[in-house]
Formats: sequence, structure tokens, C-alpha cells
Amino acid sequence: MIRPFNFSAGPATLPEEVLRHAAAEMLDWHGSGMSVMEMSHRGKEFLSIYENAEADFRELMAVPPHFKILFMQGGGLAENAIVPLNLSRGACADFVVSGSWSDKSQKEARKYCDVQIAASNQSSSHTGLPPPASWKIRRHASYVHVCTNETIHGVEFQELPDLKALGSDAPLVIDFSSHVASRPVNWSKVGLAFGGAQKNLGPAGVTLVVVREDLLGHALPACPSAFDYKTVADSQSMYNTPPTYAIYVAGLTFQWLKRQKEGEFEGIAAMEQRNIVKAQMLYDAIDHSQLYVNKINRDCRSRMNVPFFLRDESRNEAFLTGANARGLLQLKGHKSVGGMRASIYNAMPLAGVEALIGYMREFEQKKA
Amino acid sequence: MIRPFNFSAGPATLPEEVLRHAAAEMLDWHGSGMSVMEMSHRGKEFLSIYENAEADFRELMAVPPHFKILFMQGGGLAENAIVPLNLSRGACADFVVSGSWSDKSQKEARKYCDVQIAASNQSSSHTGLPPPASWKIRRHASYVHVCTNETIHGVEFQELPDLKALGSDAPLVIDFSSHVASRPVNWSKVGLAFGGAQKNLGPAGVTLVVVREDLLGHALPACPSAFDYKTVADSQSMYNTPPTYAIYVAGLTFQWLKRQKEGEFEGIAAMEQRNIVKAQMLYDAIDHSQLYVNKINRDCRSRMNVPFFLRDESRNEAFLTGANARGLLQLKGHKSVGGMRASIYNAMPLAGVEALIGYMREFEQKKA
Repeated sequence: MIRPFNFSAGPATLPEEVLRHAAAEMLDWHGSGMSVMEMSHRGKEFLSIYENAEADFRELMAVPPHFKILFMQGGGLAENAIVPLNLSRGACADFVVSGSWSDKSQKEARKYCDVQIAASNQSSSHTGLPPPASWKIRRHASYVHVCTNETIHGVEFQELPDLKALGSDAPLVIDFSSHVASRPVNWSKVGLAFGGAQKNLGPAGVTLVVVREDLLGHALPACPSAFDYKTVADSQSMYNTPPTYAIYVAGLTFQWLKRQKEGEFEGIAAMEQRNIVKAQMLYDAIDHSQLYVNKINRDCRSRMNVPFFLRDESRNEAFLTGANARGLLQLKGHKSVGGMRASIYNAMPLAGVEALIGYMREFEQKKA
Repeated sequence: MIRPFNFSAGPATLPEEVLRHAAAEMLDWHGSGMSVMEMSHRGKEFLSIYENAEADFRELMAVPPHFKILFMQGGGLAENAIVPLNLSRGACADFVVSGSWSDKSQKEARKYCDVQIAASNQSSSHTGLPPPASWKIRRHASYVHVCTNETIHGVEFQELPDLKALGSDAPLVIDFSSHVASRPVNWSKVGLAFGGAQKNLGPAGVTLVVVREDLLGHALPACPSAFDYKTVADSQSMYNTPPTYAIYVAGLTFQWLKRQKEGEFEGIAAMEQRNIVKAQMLYDAIDHSQLYVNKINRDCRSRMNVPFFLRDESRNEAFLTGANARGLLQLKGHKSVGGMRASIYNAMPLAGVEALIGYMREFEQKKA
């Protein structure tokens, strides 16, 4: 069959090459006679997979040596507790609320420390981003949390805030789950970054945490050992048995990313160029139509998650049915927002976005 | 190539049928055009996979309706914290120490409650099990923790303790990671059972928790929401994105288990018959040799993990090298115990045990 285009917000489409590779060596990895699923995590075979995955991610994302890369479990929602358990020291943390995910984060953190909302875009229904100069950051905040791409609301930071320039020494924590590896990260501005793999990196079940070494070793007594970043870092993510197969598939995805080229760009820079083009095409199509609308301010529209509405909502079902029939899957918007959402992660080819736009035009004209 | 026999203690060998099935539908699950890795966890496709996995496990293990089956993340080591976070109510919990795993559990629980060692086999170097009648269980213990199969030491409870008969109303918590689905469970004696999947059920990255409903809803305030059993139960294990692919492969393994027959026995009962035979053969071979020795009391030898030593330890390396050359993999014992260990889980065929015994005899005779 022809492979459909899957616009799921996550778990999400993976590169076809990665899936074919994983299928081909399912029963026998590199002549070992074992599936990757069957390997001891402490054996030389899996250790080589792990070390390559870590090194490839470090190279791709230019992660400096004073940051540790951890492969954990529980996804972003678990990190909402694990971050304050490790970083808050039971004191206070400041949050920028820019949509559902950062709002969930600040609510969970209240279990462990005093939380303040430094800024919020709730009054604008999460359609813009409060400018960093307006953020109220406390002098002794143990960290400042930002969700750099809101998967549900489709709001993205096009540049990381510079806390130092705002007069704060607090480390910046970024939840980059839904746009990790879609663009470079300026690590000089970051203390900790976390993200579930299932949007842009691989299968669900592995969480990537990139943490500056000086932030390790301050976990609260209530922090489970398996989620103490220092314990995890000291044991190369093998304090508990890691999600070996998910790490392997993420590693295949990192290798795929390294192979990507776009003009003079390679790797993440190449992906960013493509992501800019794909997003621009889709937003242009929406903005130039009479039927579709995206309500997010132009300066913070997400390149990854494009929520849009039909001005005539009575046509929603027909839109989705026709899309499915054309192999354009999972376009229904999140239930809390409604409408449609097209998630166009790294693994969504340009052809998928073109097919979606073609269908959207066709559907719009049918009415006329 | 001929598939070798993999005696890894976990992640461990999986049924070849399961791996072939997963490989065959890697790019297209049931005509959906999607890999299971690419499916939204809230879509109808994955929901059917999830619901079948849960129903199959419930049927296989005869889990009564008043128990919830949860698919979580973090493995047994995370559960060492998650159990007391959910069940201890900050009061006290009693532990039976029978080897490395139960010892790790009691140490972690001390973060959350007052811990007492009800009994220990440490003085015998973990070679026996203290009889339940000798256990000192406190009147107000919020639960009693037992590791029913010690993967490292090779000690197994052949029968679950009956706490009621010991005069205690406390729920029994069992860590059944390394023998789940190898034998039936008498649920009338159990409050909660947990186990990482990577030994007997599927790939690493999913943890099975079976919990009696009345134990839900008492989590400590410090319990992360993603690990609050009630939150997980109320959301059908989808509060956070579940490890979808690992659940799918575990589900394929459950279906494989359901298909097993041995004489008049089916499913888990059939597996148990085979496991008895496999273990008996291997222990007999060890006991009747001059070279090999297993130090565990006969009444509590594990059917799953068989540690053994060469009386002449200078031959260890030669033994392992010869085993590898014959496709008998991962026989080296855990570093804390030394010697050898053969893990013979459900997916290890009788032919694998026969091949191991054949090699052991050949190796022993070579010397003579």
C-alpha cells in the first residue's frame, strides 16, 4: 500500500527509512543473533547502541561537554515532577505559562516548591507570547520554566529568552518535547532541557534530558532514586533498566538526521531549513484562504504544530472524512482547542504538506 | 543464521514468533498504513491494542475484576519508590529480605516511611527463605513487601505467604518481575504485584502493576501525578503517553502465551509445566556433576534464574568462551555473585536447556 501522511501530534510519524531498518534487523542485530529487545543492557552490543545514540545526539544538537545527556522514562508529564524534585531545592520556581503544557508543568511543580507565574498569555487564549522584558522573575528563583513549543496551542519561541539579560542568574528549564531536533538550541541560555521522544525523535517510552552538570546533586529527599538526575548521570542512564528498544530506534533516527542535507546545510540545520519551508507553505495556504484560519500571532507560530479552524465548523466532519480517504491522517485538533491540527515534524516530508494543502484547496472550492 | 540461545537475565530472549510478527507489521499495522510506533495513543488503533493486551493479561493470569492492571514506566527500581509513595501513607512498611532485589526495595522505601525487616536470609548468603511463621510483621504495617523471585540470587517462593494466616491484615506487595507469567498467582493473597516486562513479558520500558482497587487513592503528596496509581488507573494508563510499542510487543507475547499447550494444560498452566521440566533438568544436571554446583536450598530454587558455579573457578573464562562459540549466550553470573547464571524464562525453549546441559557435560568431561 502507499504510505499515508500521518499528522499525529505524538506519537507521530517516523522516517520510513528508520522503520525499514528496524524491521530488517528485528531478529538479528549486526550478526549477534539477537533482537535489540533481547540484549542485556549491560552487554557490549547494547552499550555500543547506547553510546552511539548519545554521541550522535550530542553532535547533532551541538550539546557542550558540560551538559549530561540522560535517557529516562515517564515523558514530559513525569518530568513536570522530576524537574522540581531535582532543581527546586524545595524553594521557589518561576513559570511562564504559554499554553496547556506549561500550565500543567506549573501545577505539578506546586507539590514540591513555591511557584510563581512570571508571565502568562492566558488572557489572549494562548495566541501570543509575553515578551521576556515583561516577565516577573524572582531574585531567588531556583529555576525558570518555559515550554518552548506548545504542542496543543501551536505557539513556539522563535528565540530562547536570555535570563542573564533580564538580570536573573536562575537556570532556564525548557520543555522542548515537540520541537527538539527541529532547530538548533543555544545552550548558553539553557540549564536543563527535557522532551519525550515520541514527537520528533522516536517511539514513546524514552525521555531525553539534557542537563548542565552543576545542576546535578541537589535532589529533594523525596526524589525516587530512579529519577535523581545525578544517579541517572552517574550510571550512564542504567541505574534502572533503560527502555532499550526505544533508545535504539531514537538512535536510528539520530543517524537519519545526520544524513539529511539541504543545500549547504546538514543535519539539524538542514531540518530547520525544511521546517521553515513546510510551515511557511501551510500558514500561507491558511492565511490566503477564506475557509481556514489560524489564530496565533505571526511572530510565534509553531513550525511543528499548526492548529487551524474551519470558519464553517459544520464542515469539520466532512473535512476529516475526506482527508482520511486521501491518506491524510490524524488531523483532528486537540479536544481542548477543537478544529484541526497538522503536526509537521521532521519526519513529515514536504510532499505530505503539499498533499494537505492540495486537499484543503480542493475542499474549500467544493463548497463554492 | 541459526538463532542462538540467549540466557540473559533481562532484557531477555523473546519468542521468535513474536519478533517475526512485529517485524512483519512494522510499517503497516493491520492495513492502517502506520507503524504501531507512529499511532496516537488516543486513536482507535492503539486503543484496541491496549485493550486487548490488558484483557489478555487478565485472562492469562486470572486477575480478578477488583484488581486494576496498569502499564507504567520506570521498571522495578522505580516501583521501589512508587509503591511506598502510594501505599505506605507515610507510616510503616515491613520487608522480607531474600536477596539483592528485596534489599534494594527496603532501602528505597526508607525515603518515604518507617521500614522494618520482618525477616532476612542474609545470614545464609541468600540461599534459603525464612519461613513465614518466623516473620515479624508489625500490627500496623501498611504493607508487607516480598520479592517472589530473586533474579540475582536464584531464590523463588514456591508458594505465596498467607499474611492473614499470620494474623496480619496488611496487603502483600510482591515484586514478581522475573517470574511473572511463568506460573499462576493466587490473587487472594495479594494486594499489589509489580514487574518490569523485560524478563518474561516483552521489551524493557513497560512495567506491569496489578493493584487491588481499595489500595488506590492514598498517595503521599510528594507522589508525582504520573506515578499515582489512582491517576494512572482512572486514565487507563494514559495520563502520560504510555510506552506504546513496548505495550504492543508485550501484547503479542500475551497472545503467544495464550496459544501454548502442554498436554491438557494451556496458557500459563502449560508454561508452568514446561518451566518445571526445564528447571528440573538443569538442576539435576548440576547436582549430578562433579564440576558444577548450585548453593540454593532445594525447596526455594528458582525455576527462572539458575545461578551455578564451577568448582574450579579458573575454568570460568574457558566455559564462557566455549558456550558463546556454541551459541549459548549471556551465561556469565551477576557481578555481585560471580560464577554463571542461566535464565530460562518462558521464551527459552526446552531445546535451549538441553543444548546448555549437553555443553556443560562436554566441558566437564574435557578436563577428565
